[in-house]
Amino acid sequence: MALIVQKYGGTSVADTDRIRSVAQRVIKTHSAGNDVVVVLSAMAGETNRLIQLAHQITDEPNTRELDVLLATGEQTTVSLFCIMLESMGCSAVSLLGHQANIITDTAFGRARIAEINADRIQDLLSQKKIVAIAGFQGRDQQGNITTLGRGGSDTSAVAIAAALKADICEIYTDVDGVYTTDPNICEKARKLEKVSYDEMLEMASLGAKVLQIRAVEFAKKFHVPVHVRSSFKEEEGTMVVEETEDMERLVVSGVAYSKDEARITLTKVPDHPGVASRILTPVGEAGIIVDMIIQNTRKGGLTDLTFTVPKADYQKAMSIQKEVAQSIGAEQVLGDEHIAKVSVIGVGMRSHSGVAAQTFAALAKENINIMMISTSEIKISCIIEEKHTELAVRVLHDAFALDSP
Amino acid sequence: MALIVQKYGGTSVADTDRIRSVAQRVIKTHSAGNDVVVVLSAMAGETNRLIQLAHQITDEPNTRELDVLLATGEQTTVSLFCIMLESMGCSAVSLLGHQANIITDTAFGRARIAEINADRIQDLLSQKKIVAIAGFQGRDQQGNITTLGRGGSDTSAVAIAAALKADICEIYTDVDGVYTTDPNICEKARKLEKVSYDEMLEMASLGAKVLQIRAVEFAKKFHVPVHVRSSFKEEEGTMVVEETEDMERLVVSGVAYSKDEARITLTKVPDHPGVASRILTPVGEAGIIVDMIIQNTRKGGLTDLTFTVPKADYQKAMSIQKEVAQSIGAEQVLGDEHIAKVSVIGVGMRSHSGVAAQTFAALAKENINIMMISTSEIKISCIIEEKHTELAVRVLHDAFALDSP
Repeated sequence: MALIVQKYGGTSVADTDRIRSVAQRVIKTHSAGNDVVVVLSAMAGETNRLIQLAHQITDEPNTRELDVLLATGEQTTVSLFCIMLESMGCSAVSLLGHQANIITDTAFGRARIAEINADRIQDLLSQKKIVAIAGFQGRDQQGNITTLGRGGSDTSAVAIAAALKADICEIYTDVDGVYTTDPNICEKARKLEKVSYDEMLEMASLGAKVLQIRAVEFAKKFHVPVHVRSSFKEEEGTMVVEETEDMERLVVSGVAYSKDEARITLTKVPDHPGVASRILTPVGEAGIIVDMIIQNTRKGGLTDLTFTVPKADYQKAMSIQKEVAQSIGAEQVLGDEHIAKVSVIGVGMRSHSGVAAQTFAALAKENINIMMISTSEIKISCIIEEKHTELAVRVLHDAFALDSP
Repeated sequence: MALIVQKYGGTSVADTDRIRSVAQRVIKTHSAGNDVVVVLSAMAGETNRLIQLAHQITDEPNTRELDVLLATGEQTTVSLFCIMLESMGCSAVSLLGHQANIITDTAFGRARIAEINADRIQDLLSQKKIVAIAGFQGRDQQGNITTLGRGGSDTSAVAIAAALKADICEIYTDVDGVYTTDPNICEKARKLEKVSYDEMLEMASLGAKVLQIRAVEFAKKFHVPVHVRSSFKEEEGTMVVEETEDMERLVVSGVAYSKDEARITLTKVPDHPGVASRILTPVGEAGIIVDMIIQNTRKGGLTDLTFTVPKADYQKAMSIQKEVAQSIGAEQVLGDEHIAKVSVIGVGMRSHSGVAAQTFAALAKENINIMMISTSEIKISCIIEEKHTELAVRVLHDAFALDSP
């Protein structure tokens, strides 16, 4: 007998038939003697429908009110889900974010969970009820409704699991686990049995879409074991857990990639102290997140500075840099949207040297040019030409023999 | 400068264009220096859409969860409305039932308002904000979401006006006021400038659909002046107010009708003491509301007992009575779904005799047979054949010269 938090995403509750399947799955777990808390997303497409409704009015809807609107999505799902469970003879209660005492800050649209008082949930569980909680939403100290941003239901689920000290948080999704790389571009991709929080964090931030970064951060901070698995299949998925010694035997656990970045270069920048700050500060002030930065020294006190930004912010960043280039006397601003970031990730890297060399060698062998490199303790990322993305992923997957456990 | 509560129904906020019109109207009132609280219904059709969604799952959805589902309707409207106001440069805040501290009992689907703490609304008004409150919903003492039942937004508006001691509660609807009778069947129908709470109560309970009965009860109890008017026109509608002396000069204010009842007769009932109770108790226990009752004595200790029930409960009431008839030894159970109730209403009736006689004479002149009669201080109702409804309404409208003020 365990306390289990299960989270189902939008595709798993897309219509009443799928809600029925989820209900059957939940009842099975409950009937086996477990306490079950279910966290649900909005039905697939619903959040976009609501956003479109707001955009019929204005391109920039008031953020407080947009959150009130979007919160109806998960509210609809939890009520339908409990209607389903009750119609199947199972006692269930829905809780909205504010009813479940999920307290957040007041950053509408991207609120962060500050605190969860789980007393009400505990009380309902002790009455043997199944508790369904609306994901993605909470309330601030003043009682305003807030939402956690896209993918926030993962975070809701892990945070609730942490508050309840649940035995496990199961994330049901449309993929059946975490893979060594994207199976769509590498047929040798293999499902991992387990992965550490840190590896999962790197994978999530480097482009793997299976779990939301903040959810993994929460899981790591509060030691919540997370099980990522398919809502359409019975078999086990991937456990995201504390690092264990046997994980280190594997040097590399996965290869991730992202096509969501663009590169900007300022050439022949007069190399005074503080010049990098003059280039990058206005980008940060515009709310644009800079990922990699490299600086090459030229002759004659000149330097080239290159950095990457999210592709969505590329145009804005370019026009900022054109002004900056003029004011600091740089020669020109070059931009490139056709780049990709390929990364190898693994906690075992810490104790193994040579992973970087092996990575570069593997790419070089296929004549894939590396434009930028960044490394951390457990990952190596390379910026390459976008057209080489799939090839690079397969080459690295082979180089580290990820297809065999 | 006044404190005004405005309520807009579902057709007034049916799409974003209509929401824009409502916003313009509200801004106009606010710009004139008034404090404005707006109570909104769900967009036309939305509540039915949600009910259908629940009925895809089961014919009898859990009532607590159905309320959670239905509450999304008004939540959507108030958020879109505030997004609209904010996009027009006007400071607005939406409040859901629980945020506005609308406390109800726990009768899901038909909850009654117990208390409203208006502090938060007052606070927002003092900041010169327009406050938009989701109608039809509240929360119980435990924090469960409740709804007030169909037409509950009228009740929300009047109750909020009472709690705020508002100068007026304006009910915007798709008709332009309260008429002497239904203009669709009597072209001489005239819009009333004002009507008393008691008259409005009778009209509402006798079939006029312009205001919800509970809203009128609230208005009467807390002396809230209500102005029923069109959301599509500028002109004044009808004031629903305390009775004044000049109202009594008018003997009859209006003619109402209803086709929502059915009649059941038990013939040759052995006339023992308590027999009426044996007939009607099981009907009441089945949750069926009996309206009129008449009993005719026959020869030989036998009696006929006739009563009316809502048409929706007719089949259920018939099958109950078939059992009852057997157990008490009545001859047979006759039913008639093709009846109508026509009523004349007026506070002036109290001090004028002869209204009943005049009513019966007018109907008799057209050979309209009266099957049952019931009277109160300010109304006379007759059950007639359904096919005569429209004719009866016009005849009575003429008989009391309601077309001239």
